[in-house]
Amino acid sequence: MARIVMKFGGTSVADLTRIHNVARHVKREVDAGHEVAVVVSAMAGKTNELVAWAQGMPKATGSSTPFYDAREYDAIVASGEQVTAGLLAIALQSIGVDARSWQGWQIPIRTDNAHGAARILDIDGSELVRRMGLGQVAVVTGFQGIGPDNRIATLGRGGSDTSAVAIAAALKADRCDIYTDVDGVYTTDPRIEPKARRLAKISFEEMLEMASLGAKVLQVRSVELAMVHKVRTFVRSSFEEPDAPGMGDFDNPPGTLICDEDEIVEQQVVTGIAYAKDEAQISLRRVDDRPGVAAGIFGPLAEANINVDMIVQNISEDGSRTDMTFTVPSGDVDKALAVLEKNRATVGFDAVQSEAGMVKVSVIGIGMRSHAGVAATAFKALAEKGINIRAITTSEIKISILIDGPYAELAVRTLHSVYGLDKQ
Amino acid sequence: MARIVMKFGGTSVADLTRIHNVARHVKREVDAGHEVAVVVSAMAGKTNELVAWAQGMPKATGSSTPFYDAREYDAIVASGEQVTAGLLAIALQSIGVDARSWQGWQIPIRTDNAHGAARILDIDGSELVRRMGLGQVAVVTGFQGIGPDNRIATLGRGGSDTSAVAIAAALKADRCDIYTDVDGVYTTDPRIEPKARRLAKISFEEMLEMASLGAKVLQVRSVELAMVHKVRTFVRSSFEEPDAPGMGDFDNPPGTLICDEDEIVEQQVVTGIAYAKDEAQISLRRVDDRPGVAAGIFGPLAEANINVDMIVQNISEDGSRTDMTFTVPSGDVDKALAVLEKNRATVGFDAVQSEAGMVKVSVIGIGMRSHAGVAATAFKALAEKGINIRAITTSEIKISILIDGPYAELAVRTLHSVYGLDKQ
Repeated sequence: MARIVMKFGGTSVADLTRIHNVARHVKREVDAGHEVAVVVSAMAGKTNELVAWAQGMPKATGSSTPFYDAREYDAIVASGEQVTAGLLAIALQSIGVDARSWQGWQIPIRTDNAHGAARILDIDGSELVRRMGLGQVAVVTGFQGIGPDNRIATLGRGGSDTSAVAIAAALKADRCDIYTDVDGVYTTDPRIEPKARRLAKISFEEMLEMASLGAKVLQVRSVELAMVHKVRTFVRSSFEEPDAPGMGDFDNPPGTLICDEDEIVEQQVVTGIAYAKDEAQISLRRVDDRPGVAAGIFGPLAEANINVDMIVQNISEDGSRTDMTFTVPSGDVDKALAVLEKNRATVGFDAVQSEAGMVKVSVIGIGMRSHAGVAATAFKALAEKGINIRAITTSEIKISILIDGPYAELAVRTLHSVYGLDKQ
Repeated sequence: MARIVMKFGGTSVADLTRIHNVARHVKREVDAGHEVAVVVSAMAGKTNELVAWAQGMPKATGSSTPFYDAREYDAIVASGEQVTAGLLAIALQSIGVDARSWQGWQIPIRTDNAHGAARILDIDGSELVRRMGLGQVAVVTGFQGIGPDNRIATLGRGGSDTSAVAIAAALKADRCDIYTDVDGVYTTDPRIEPKARRLAKISFEEMLEMASLGAKVLQVRSVELAMVHKVRTFVRSSFEEPDAPGMGDFDNPPGTLICDEDEIVEQQVVTGIAYAKDEAQISLRRVDDRPGVAAGIFGPLAEANINVDMIVQNISEDGSRTDMTFTVPSGDVDKALAVLEKNRATVGFDAVQSEAGMVKVSVIGIGMRSHAGVAATAFKALAEKGINIRAITTSEIKISILIDGPYAELAVRTLHSVYGLDKQ
């Protein structure tokens, strides 16, 4: 007997048939004797419709009036999950599973006041735990809670993953199962490398690097939260038949477990290869090398909402001037250049160069902390394929390499192979 | 300066354009210096969609499980008003009117636990009144409140009228304006009698008789509530341009005011002619005339959910046997006859006769309390047209006459004319 949280996203609850299928997944776990809470998103497309309505209102006439009130936006958009939760509760009851729906304000899930992008502050799981102990499934609206103003607050798009992990932490659940339209986390993108393998386990730290680099399986915030609270999070497919072989195997179901690295007995040196396309490289030549100059460059870029990724600064030759290279999304190059030009006087640099159409390829693995030569292997492999390296940044568990766009797929396959990820 | 509640139904808020039009109606009243609360329904068609989803779930397998859980039904269906309230608040803000949405549980509007058909027990209007005093419009979700179980409870279809009147009572509003797709209450159905006139005023009692007889302008419950709390309720059209002449005339806007009879200075003897089609007449011949026999007949019919309308019982000739005639909806005749047959032994009657396709025509007016001969006028007028009277029932302010279906329109026009209702 275990306590589990099951989360189903919008495509998994897109219509009544799929909601009924979700109910069968839940029943399987209930029948196995587990205590179950379910977190649901709005039916696919519903949130977009509601957002379009909220944003489709005529623009404010006075400049002091906001385009729309985020608190009203929240009240409108949160209704989508409310509908799904009620429907799933009915679907569960219809197959003999005791269930009731819970809206964020009923539990309550308390958030801060940042409507539209609220953070969960506290969840009182006591009543849910009591009822789950009596065999009742709790069906909880994802993506929302109640703010200090007693109004519904949403967590921002994709927030249902975060809701699920937070609820799993509050309920001290043994596992948080994220049912989604992929069946787990792969060593790299299978569309680029068909030999990519599904990982049985991946550490929180690795998943964070994978997610922010574009693995797109789980919301980054939810992984951070899982790491902090050590919530074992299982990514698995909602499109498998609920009674398919192995689906009910608690210790080893199909999917990928995101967990503490202590739980990963046989650690690989490298776990996966991620990539991010459409990066642009911007280089400032002969920048003043003095305290505060980095802040002078990146402060205004952040204010302009430009997401700076890799930053490379070399030791200056003479101690007074240096080169600074960084990447931004290709679509933001012009905006970034305009911001830099405007601040040229205060920052002080000789020239600025930029080039779009770059790709960042990253090698990720907690094993590299204790293994030397991981980076050298990558550089050598890329060199052998004639791929030029534009910039390199490293962290404890990641090596990121900026290369020319056309070499993206070749680089991913080369690195995937050189670390033996295509072998079982 | 006055305090008013404005209620808009589903067709009035069916899309973003209409919601913006509603906002202009509200702004007109705010600009006139009034304190305003608005009660909204779900966008037209939305409630039906949600109900269909809730009811479309696969049927329960075990007979002990209900078809659907009314509490979940409420959570699902109540989301429709939540969306409209948020959208209207944004629309108001966009034209410079301070506004916020309120869901039933936030105010709170407390109801009993009869999910799906809950009754309002109490409304705490203090915070709304405070904010309205500061110039903020309160946009309230109609049709719902919160039950003693801390879950959303809906009032049943059409409940938004009831919400509006209850809120008007709680806020001690000067008037409750019901904006709908008709522009008031008429002396009779204009589709039958083109000379029908819109009434400037009608008493609560008369409106109750009109509504239950098929005037279909306002939910009966909302009129009952308005009568109890003496809420002056104004029926008016939401499809008029918000700035059309007279719309902002507080004392005399276009529409029909439902009010206490004391407020109606020039009382007409007869206010309107209502009718109900598809009635069936059932007569029991030579029923035992003893205490409890009526209960023996109508108790089982009520248990079978058959709505009995007119009931006529004559004094028995010999003190032991009598005839009993009553009407039911034509569609329920077979069911009613089966129920009667089943209870024949306990009730005791010689024979049962039935005839469908009847019409009940009613003459309504508080003035008839103090005027003799009102009924005689009706009987004479119908006789002159050769219309046979099947049964008659009367109350203090109503005379109902059962006639053969084909004479319905002729009877309505005849009565409308004989009481002078077609004259200004």
